[in-house]
Amino acid sequence: MDRTRLYRNGVLKAEGFPIDDVSDHIGDPSVVVWFDLCSPSPADLEKISEELGLHRLAVEDALHSDQRPKLDTYDSHLFITVYGAKLVGKRLELTEISIFVTKNALVTVRESPHFDIDAVIRRWDANAEMARYGVPYLLHGLLDYVVDGYFDVLQVIDDKVEALEDDLFEDNDADRLHIQRQTYEMRKSLVRFRRLAVPMREVVGSLLRRGVEMLDPALTPYYQDLYDHTLRAAEWTDSLRELVGNVREAHINQQGFRLNDIMKKITSWAAIIAVPTMITGFYGQNVPYPGFSQPLGFWTSTAAILVASSILYLIFKKKGWL
Amino acid sequence: MDRTRLYRNGVLKAEGFPIDDVSDHIGDPSVVVWFDLCSPSPADLEKISEELGLHRLAVEDALHSDQRPKLDTYDSHLFITVYGAKLVGKRLELTEISIFVTKNALVTVRESPHFDIDAVIRRWDANAEMARYGVPYLLHGLLDYVVDGYFDVLQVIDDKVEALEDDLFEDNDADRLHIQRQTYEMRKSLVRFRRLAVPMREVVGSLLRRGVEMLDPALTPYYQDLYDHTLRAAEWTDSLRELVGNVREAHINQQGFRLNDIMKKITSWAAIIAVPTMITGFYGQNVPYPGFSQPLGFWTSTAAILVASSILYLIFKKKGWL
Amino acid sequence: MDRTRLYRNGVLKAEGFPIDDVSDHIGDPSVVVWFDLCSPSPADLEKISEELGLHRLAVEDALHSDQRPKLDTYDSHLFITVYGAKLVGKRLELTEISIFVTKNALVTVRESPHFDIDAVIRRWDANAEMARYGVPYLLHGLLDYVVDGYFDVLQVIDDKVEALEDDLFEDNDADRLHIQRQTYEMRKSLVRFRRLAVPMREVVGSLLRRGVEMLDPALTPYYQDLYDHTLRAAEWTDSLRELVGNVREAHINQQGFRLNDIMKKITSWAAIIAVPTMITGFYGQNVPYPGFSQPLGFWTSTAAILVASSILYLIFKKKGWL
Amino acid sequence: MDRTRLYRNGVLKAEGFPIDDVSDHIGDPSVVVWFDLCSPSPADLEKISEELGLHRLAVEDALHSDQRPKLDTYDSHLFITVYGAKLVGKRLELTEISIFVTKNALVTVRESPHFDIDAVIRRWDANAEMARYGVPYLLHGLLDYVVDGYFDVLQVIDDKVEALEDDLFEDNDADRLHIQRQTYEMRKSLVRFRRLAVPMREVVGSLLRRGVEMLDPALTPYYQDLYDHTLRAAEWTDSLRELVGNVREAHINQQGFRLNDIMKKITSWAAIIAVPTMITGFYGQNVPYPGFSQPLGFWTSTAAILVASSILYLIFKKKGWL
Amino acid sequence: MDRTRLYRNGVLKAEGFPIDDVSDHIGDPSVVVWFDLCSPSPADLEKISEELGLHRLAVEDALHSDQRPKLDTYDSHLFITVYGAKLVGKRLELTEISIFVTKNALVTVRESPHFDIDAVIRRWDANAEMARYGVPYLLHGLLDYVVDGYFDVLQVIDDKVEALEDDLFEDNDADRLHIQRQTYEMRKSLVRFRRLAVPMREVVGSLLRRGVEMLDPALTPYYQDLYDHTLRAAEWTDSLRELVGNVREAHINQQGFRLNDIMKKITSWAAIIAVPTMITGFYGQNVPYPGFSQPLGFWTSTAAILVASSILYLIFKKKGWL
Repeated sequence: MDRTRLYRNGVLKAEGFPIDDVSDHIGDPSVVVWFDLCSPSPADLEKISEELGLHRLAVEDALHSDQRPKLDTYDSHLFITVYGAKLVGKRLELTEISIFVTKNALVTVRESPHFDIDAVIRRWDANAEMARYGVPYLLHGLLDYVVDGYFDVLQVIDDKVEALEDDLFEDNDADRLHIQRQTYEMRKSLVRFRRLAVPMREVVGSLLRRGVEMLDPALTPYYQDLYDHTLRAAEWTDSLRELVGNVREAHINQQGFRLNDIMKKITSWAAIIAVPTMITGFYGQNVPYPGFSQPLGFWTSTAAILVASSILYLIFKKKGWL
Repeated sequence: MDRTRLYRNGVLKAEGFPIDDVSDHIGDPSVVVWFDLCSPSPADLEKISEELGLHRLAVEDALHSDQRPKLDTYDSHLFITVYGAKLVGKRLELTEISIFVTKNALVTVRESPHFDIDAVIRRWDANAEMARYGVPYLLHGLLDYVVDGYFDVLQVIDDKVEALEDDLFEDNDADRLHIQRQTYEMRKSLVRFRRLAVPMREVVGSLLRRGVEMLDPALTPYYQDLYDHTLRAAEWTDSLRELVGNVREAHINQQGFRLNDIMKKITSWAAIIAVPTMITGFYGQNVPYPGFSQPLGFWTSTAAILVASSILYLIFKKKGWL
Repeated sequence: MDRTRLYRNGVLKAEGFPIDDVSDHIGDPSVVVWFDLCSPSPADLEKISEELGLHRLAVEDALHSDQRPKLDTYDSHLFITVYGAKLVGKRLELTEISIFVTKNALVTVRESPHFDIDAVIRRWDANAEMARYGVPYLLHGLLDYVVDGYFDVLQVIDDKVEALEDDLFEDNDADRLHIQRQTYEMRKSLVRFRRLAVPMREVVGSLLRRGVEMLDPALTPYYQDLYDHTLRAAEWTDSLRELVGNVREAHINQQGFRLNDIMKKITSWAAIIAVPTMITGFYGQNVPYPGFSQPLGFWTSTAAILVASSILYLIFKKKGWL
Repeated sequence: MDRTRLYRNGVLKAEGFPIDDVSDHIGDPSVVVWFDLCSPSPADLEKISEELGLHRLAVEDALHSDQRPKLDTYDSHLFITVYGAKLVGKRLELTEISIFVTKNALVTVRESPHFDIDAVIRRWDANAEMARYGVPYLLHGLLDYVVDGYFDVLQVIDDKVEALEDDLFEDNDADRLHIQRQTYEMRKSLVRFRRLAVPMREVVGSLLRRGVEMLDPALTPYYQDLYDHTLRAAEWTDSLRELVGNVREAHINQQGFRLNDIMKKITSWAAIIAVPTMITGFYGQNVPYPGFSQPLGFWTSTAAILVASSILYLIFKKKGWL
Repeated sequence: MDRTRLYRNGVLKAEGFPIDDVSDHIGDPSVVVWFDLCSPSPADLEKISEELGLHRLAVEDALHSDQRPKLDTYDSHLFITVYGAKLVGKRLELTEISIFVTKNALVTVRESPHFDIDAVIRRWDANAEMARYGVPYLLHGLLDYVVDGYFDVLQVIDDKVEALEDDLFEDNDADRLHIQRQTYEMRKSLVRFRRLAVPMREVVGSLLRRGVEMLDPALTPYYQDLYDHTLRAAEWTDSLRELVGNVREAHINQQGFRLNDIMKKITSWAAIIAVPTMITGFYGQNVPYPGFSQPLGFWTSTAAILVASSILYLIFKKKGWL
């Protein structure tokens, strides 16, 4: 079933009709039309582009993924590129959504079915009474859903950072590589995510600034709210980068301190073993030392070994090296 | 008892009356009303929202905590979100306060009772003569109290940094993990705190800029003063981040230098023990070396051990390795 | 064959004619002329400069490579310097291209034949119908090709970063120097590349701002698109710098952790070998210890060695040190 | 003696008269009055505040130290907070100076006597002929003295950085902790100093911008000069932070390299001692090896020891490890 | 010989005449005068200052070196401070040049003879035909020479960075301290250099902005070109800082990796020596082990030693530890 919708005077009149029927309504100013294309062929786009009078450059951009949210203004329409984000395991999965915005039509072009367009439809229906504001209302619902997805991603990373922290100060070697890899992956995701979040802020900011003429004043607070969300997403991203950096540095120091401990243990045990070895070496000499070949020698040797080892053990224990 | 207040012509007329009575006064322009809701239900907010004509989006925001101070302008009212901050142990505890500002009413919505609204009331009463400036005066008192809370947090962290410093250059291993954890916690708190302090500056800055029409000129210096405080809080946060970084780096270097010392000690003692072991090994050979099985052998061996060990000990002592 | 082109009223009329013939057409306003000079002598440039009325400073700049994209406005013409970029092995190879832009002529001066001007010609021909926009169309095709070259460079570096990552968490020593060198080279290339990408953004941005008078409105979207590309190149460069930094830091930590492991292995094996040595030392003493010169001694010694070594081995195995 | 001054038409008429006499002159527009309060009581300030019509907020600010230079504009006067800075040992000592600026009076309120107000008086007297410009001239003299104090601080830190550098590349362990502590202290001072220097720049910048109406044009160059000085102080602070960072990093690397050297020495000497020990172990076996209990054994053993040790010593010497 | 010049209507009329003769021509508007003072006494400057009507503050600044390029505008003249830069060995040598610019006079005051003013004269003469533009032409020639000097400094540092790189990945210990010192020195020079390059950009930028009234339009491209050079110098400085940082970090990692290698070698050789020592210890026991005092013992011992050592050697060789 094609994802299409037709509103007349703010009321949903038709849904799921074939995309080809769109052309029947496009000229009617009382009608607002939406339809969605999922990974369309160049020919599909070409047809629609002609009907709606879309600019060649915008259509080309919709066909190529270029990893940067943007807003282009053409004479008769806007062209917006945004990216839906989802964390799949520890990979950040992005889906490009190209949006054509004309006076009475909204066209969404999804790069792949990974972006859940039905959730957007549910969001529209949750505020159905606002449908009278037309295309800007539809656009808001879509962008709002996209930005909410960003918070889901950030929340997951935030939770992971908190979880890492618990492992951080435990003396558990098994966690070591785990922490190292996790911080690596998270930082990588955040670098990529930042490339979305910051330009997204500019896209919504531009919409808001230009919107003065385009938007019904009643919609302005909604776009303002959306803009606040993009600001928050960008700031949160930066905070998380710092928190990940904090974990990473603390982890490295932790390792450094542990190496220090190990070095101290080495010294201590090496000394505790080396001294008896030196003493038995002494009593192993083929020279008539006091007690040579006599029980006395055995007792003095054994006593020396025990005394020296115990003293060393106690010294190191007291210094906290063992 | 409900927290409510009613001022008429700058004089406190009633206090602690039920919130439901508010609607009796809200239409009277000579009256200024304040009331406070602590973790209200959606229904509670709904009722008030209708009476005061609050925007749906603002009401929704008041119900959800979203961790970012902001100022939204609606047609008939302002909506402000700020966060009270307190250090509980080493955790930074934040309480969201949503504020609705209309011509003659101030509504504060606290996320939880952790924010001490009575202290705000005391602050208002300390400058009771200024109540004639109405809502902006109440708002100033509230924001001023919030920002003063930030300085309390920053002062505690500042004191902790100073305290860490004293431990820093002492040769005490027990403090090590302590310093490491403290710097970790402080940096984490500062990252979170920064997410409050910087947007708070913008919120007060916006109030000041828009205030030209809204504020009585006599109040401008008070808002300017508040703005200076938010600037100072943001700058102090940044300084503290650098000071914590300074402690942290100095601490790591300290550990590095200590490892260096330990390595030198290892070398030294290893040498002092290894050389006698080598000598006794020589005298333990089953070959007729000079002194084999003769007292002479014992004396030369013992002399060699003592001389070699002493020389090594003195060399290392002189080099400062022991 | 000389690279020259002559368009009349947006139609390609002649191609490959000698540069000396250019002067015949330069005065005709219905004609647009392009020609290319590859590492010209000062005399060559001098001649052309006189015919087209180019400024002395611009001509001098065209003769000297100075490693910074720029746009200079002279009374009668623009002078643009851009750099073509290519990765040859791991070296970033730059070719300066100086561009003189007059009302009806475009002159490109290439520092060396490494920049493939024929590819630019192919790009022009791909959109031949736009030739009616004259010089700005030719300039757009050229700059677009240059910026596309930047993406090729960035894509190669991006792929290399991804490839490094796979090696990163493997326990393979041979890769170590490889990763170290690669991150060094990539960071170096990115520093140099950034010196191109950021000023390039300004060059195109200036063209767009000044273009209001110069450009046919139909071309504006094309220049806007180009500007988006330069933005994206600059942002991508910054992301890559961070990703390379991420790999580098993870790699260093990796090495630190590995050193830790090795230190643990040393301790463990040293202990496992040192203890039997100490025991045999004991049984090598020339004193009548229990079992001296008797089979009993052999059995107790051997048993002690095996038991002590096994216990140590198991302890270390359990601690994960072996 | 009270620090007070009275100028009439640019000529110093009275000095050192009691502060209480000030009120006699304050209404006379041909008179310029200055007086200084050192750590005044709230009552003292209250009295003066009434006479000069100072704003309550400014007076409160003058009583509390809040560590941030600022300029507040009130209806009838300016309020300026600056900080005098001095290095006492390695501690940065700050003294708050609050300044009230009215049409014909300058009031300075010093937090403590550590700020040398007499030096300011000497500076005023050095340019006595400029006294005809009134209050702005007095203010300039004061601020100029404060900023010059900053340069003294920065010069001392700069000299210290230079001095550290000489110790840096010497192989002297005693300096180690010294360098570490010094860089720590300097960086800390610079962080605190930066919190003065940057807002100070803004304070003077604001004075200059607002001064258009207030200042005699003849004074503008003097304020411009002062502004240049604040710029220079801020830039110098940043340079010093980087230079201290440079020293610190070089120092850490130095330590790392030294650890490397020590590890090499350990290996070398350990090998030189371990090999003879192994040889004597061989000749200590109770088995009939060639030379067992014969002079031949002694000579082969001794030769093996000498040859092996010498070879190892020479190898390590050649590798530069000893 | 004094460095003086007199142009009338753009033609050089006199040169090398005594500075005292300047006053004869200074009032003549058709004349342009230049003269140079090298480390003048206050009295010298005083005299000139009176004749040209220079501001007291500017004259004072010319007498004191304050390490920051700046441009001050006075009623009747401009005052510019710039710094000539030269690398002498690895030290960055700066020479302050103070410049007074009046309608028809240019005065240069050099702090020391290290700045080669004759080279500036040669540059003027190279474009002698432009002398008709008067003082701005002379000023351009001077500033252009100064900025070109910056490129010489940057080129030397750039070459050094390239040279260091070749040493970087070689396994040569002798270079180690060399690299460490070089990066230290270069970074220090770049910090100091940055303090020149960035304000220099502002000085030329200000000249360009204000120049609208002052400059002949024909000179604008020359000042624009100069401004591009200062931009490039600032950007190059930043790139070099990053490249030096890149070398430094790679160098430190290199050292870390080498330490790792040494640790592995230690383990390996320690094990290869420790195992035979353990075996000979076994055969040195005074207990009747199999082969005690029999040739069989010698052969088993020797075989065990050779086999164990070889196996270990091969294992370590295969692991790449030796």
